[in-house]
Amino acid sequence: MPFYTERKIRLKYQKPKGTADVLPDTSRLWDYVETKSRQIFDRYRFGEIRVPMFESYDLYARSSGDTSDIVTKEMYDFHDKGDRHMALRPEGTAGVVRAFVENKLYGPEYPKPYRVYYMGPMFRYERPQSGRQREFHQIGVEAFGSESPLLDTEVIQLGVDLLHAVGVHDLRLAINTLGDPATRDAYHQALVDYFAPHRAELSEDSQIRLEKNPLRILDSKDPRDKVFVKDAPSILDYLTPAAQNHFAAVKTALDGLNIDYTVDPTMVRGLDYYNHTIFEIMTSSPAFGNKELTVLAGGRYDGLVEQFGGPATPGVGFGIGLERLILLVQQAQQLPPAPDLNVYIVSLNDQAGEEALRLAHAIRNAGFTVDMDFMARKAKGQFKTANRENAQLVITLGEDELANQVASIKQMATGKQQQVPFNTVENNFQSIYQHLVEEGEQE
Amino acid sequence: MPFYTERKIRLKYQKPKGTADVLPDTSRLWDYVETKSRQIFDRYRFGEIRVPMFESYDLYARSSGDTSDIVTKEMYDFHDKGDRHMALRPEGTAGVVRAFVENKLYGPEYPKPYRVYYMGPMFRYERPQSGRQREFHQIGVEAFGSESPLLDTEVIQLGVDLLHAVGVHDLRLAINTLGDPATRDAYHQALVDYFAPHRAELSEDSQIRLEKNPLRILDSKDPRDKVFVKDAPSILDYLTPAAQNHFAAVKTALDGLNIDYTVDPTMVRGLDYYNHTIFEIMTSSPAFGNKELTVLAGGRYDGLVEQFGGPATPGVGFGIGLERLILLVQQAQQLPPAPDLNVYIVSLNDQAGEEALRLAHAIRNAGFTVDMDFMARKAKGQFKTANRENAQLVITLGEDELANQVASIKQMATGKQQQVPFNTVENNFQSIYQHLVEEGEQE
Repeated sequence: MPFYTERKIRLKYQKPKGTADVLPDTSRLWDYVETKSRQIFDRYRFGEIRVPMFESYDLYARSSGDTSDIVTKEMYDFHDKGDRHMALRPEGTAGVVRAFVENKLYGPEYPKPYRVYYMGPMFRYERPQSGRQREFHQIGVEAFGSESPLLDTEVIQLGVDLLHAVGVHDLRLAINTLGDPATRDAYHQALVDYFAPHRAELSEDSQIRLEKNPLRILDSKDPRDKVFVKDAPSILDYLTPAAQNHFAAVKTALDGLNIDYTVDPTMVRGLDYYNHTIFEIMTSSPAFGNKELTVLAGGRYDGLVEQFGGPATPGVGFGIGLERLILLVQQAQQLPPAPDLNVYIVSLNDQAGEEALRLAHAIRNAGFTVDMDFMARKAKGQFKTANRENAQLVITLGEDELANQVASIKQMATGKQQQVPFNTVENNFQSIYQHLVEEGEQE
Repeated sequence: MPFYTERKIRLKYQKPKGTADVLPDTSRLWDYVETKSRQIFDRYRFGEIRVPMFESYDLYARSSGDTSDIVTKEMYDFHDKGDRHMALRPEGTAGVVRAFVENKLYGPEYPKPYRVYYMGPMFRYERPQSGRQREFHQIGVEAFGSESPLLDTEVIQLGVDLLHAVGVHDLRLAINTLGDPATRDAYHQALVDYFAPHRAELSEDSQIRLEKNPLRILDSKDPRDKVFVKDAPSILDYLTPAAQNHFAAVKTALDGLNIDYTVDPTMVRGLDYYNHTIFEIMTSSPAFGNKELTVLAGGRYDGLVEQFGGPATPGVGFGIGLERLILLVQQAQQLPPAPDLNVYIVSLNDQAGEEALRLAHAIRNAGFTVDMDFMARKAKGQFKTANRENAQLVITLGEDELANQVASIKQMATGKQQQVPFNTVENNFQSIYQHLVEEGEQE
């Protein structure tokens, strides 16, 4: 059986569960958000880093913390053909820190803080009941090598500027501190002392958390835990003087920048690697039924580089969920309009089609957008397409035009028409456009 | 044991085999190539489509053809936690065609040809001996809905323009045709008739190919096959009149555009879905020891949409290997230089640091790039950093400046200095910059 008969077998395929296709109408919005973000990152001197879509499972497991939801429930992990335990990246920081260490970016030849941003797909293998995406997207930043509280503030300001730049306002910033190791040691003990007498009354998950990471109990949504969480000790009462000073300096600098914030001492964030400042930026939008949702979150992670085998190096960063941001941008402002088509070339026979290709190429080389017919449409259908695409100029090529090597160019808005030799079109389209469109607009 | 002591355990992680980190110095080049490509796609009216990083294994297996190398040897496939057989995408076309069908983009509300481009990571699980990447990157285009040979030519011209736009010249275009189903049926039989008497002398792979897809024997690099391949019948002798006409029209249109090409009747391309025109653009560059390598390849695939469950719809497209292109671009031209830093703010004490944050924010909001110190460096170290970053202007903030709310601004190229009140810096930096830098450059 010749293989080409395969094509007669009709098959139905669907995108994998929890993934999405972004089609051109929407991708323009993604491109808009990414381009604006790059502009802001540029002003703050953050450069782009691109790390692999997958790494060893251990990398993410270790950095997320064994008790975090990302590890225990949501990692998109698998065994590759060499039986290596791999995972599609669940978030951006672990890969970037791995790259920072592996590429020795802590070296003195790299100015500090070493500042990078990333954007791209992330993955989680969701529990079936949740509606969230298995492939989703984040934009994030990381800054390594400075322990200054001013950098925490700078990174927060960068996040605010980015959101403002894409038209998302009405933001609420919540901050907290997880202190330094001595702070967390003391607070850990205080939480154990507080929760242990109620162990049996806690959720099963939190009974495990009590052993492994009692801090995470504060994040529990289980009503059995919430009863006790509300009167739990506050980390703010266990800060060492150094941790107090760091947090105070962040708050002073935020005040200086006129950035409003609320301190939320129960905020812990979902990843175990944070210390000192953690923050979330929330907004409520009609896009989410006016419910307040987090759009950006981050914090300091001064131990992570060392944990990954590098020299002790402080770090601070944030991540933004791009799907959510796109919805906010769509709600907040009009999509940037699709640009007008500059030129549509109507061709009235086959030979005119070849000439159309030639003129199209020359006009595009001059920097203009051009479309033409590839569907053997009649003239009327081609004019209809030109109108549908909002063509500013229509060039018509028929027998006469080919015989005389002259193009009929019509300005669609005014109906103004002109005959221009092919070689003028090819060599000097800029001035034709200026004459017909730009001067036309000024009239 | 409090969990934070984990950070004292040093671990070493490495990126997965066959993946790469793209660091900021290089990512600027990637961004440059992507931005230029978007500009060219825009002129040709191709919009961006983004499809998932993975799909069901069957999707890629069926579209690539069971005998292609991609399927039989190189797919990066795995079983997900729900035991679904998935694969990281090996190439762009299959996912785009799946999206075209699933989103009903063949509908009359979408103008035809429906034209899209994609860019992003692709994956293959390499045989260990090869040095190629497991995660690599492609830029590609697909145009659906027109069977016009002018569109084949337009797509080739687009590829050439894109390569030229990023500075890659000295291209060689090779084209061939695989004809229509009747052509391939006749040619299939001719190849079987020709190779069958030599079956036992062919490589083991080609003995299988002789059963499944004799066309692919032409692509064999095995010397046992090459002996017979060189005298194998040419597909050009088996073209139906319709296939001949299509190919002739492509060649005429290429001639009309002054695009040189060679016809290579032994070219078959690695994927089973092609028919009619197929093409490769090659270049030799010192980046590859002046060896001629393919940088762009594509063709027509008129049966693929139907094979995926959509209505019979012609298609044509190409893909570009981005890693290879980046090397060519690097060889062909200077990296676009890193932009100068507009402003560096030197702060001489903690309070000055807070003021620096404030001024930095205002100046960035005016559209400029700003850096400052987060490392508690002394003044000398900060000036050194400013020089290293090629700062155009340096603002110094010390006790006097804070007391008087006036910034000392120095233009680094000329040493020209000026005192400017903080609120002028905050509200009118554009004119300060014009005065100090732009007018300075004109002198």
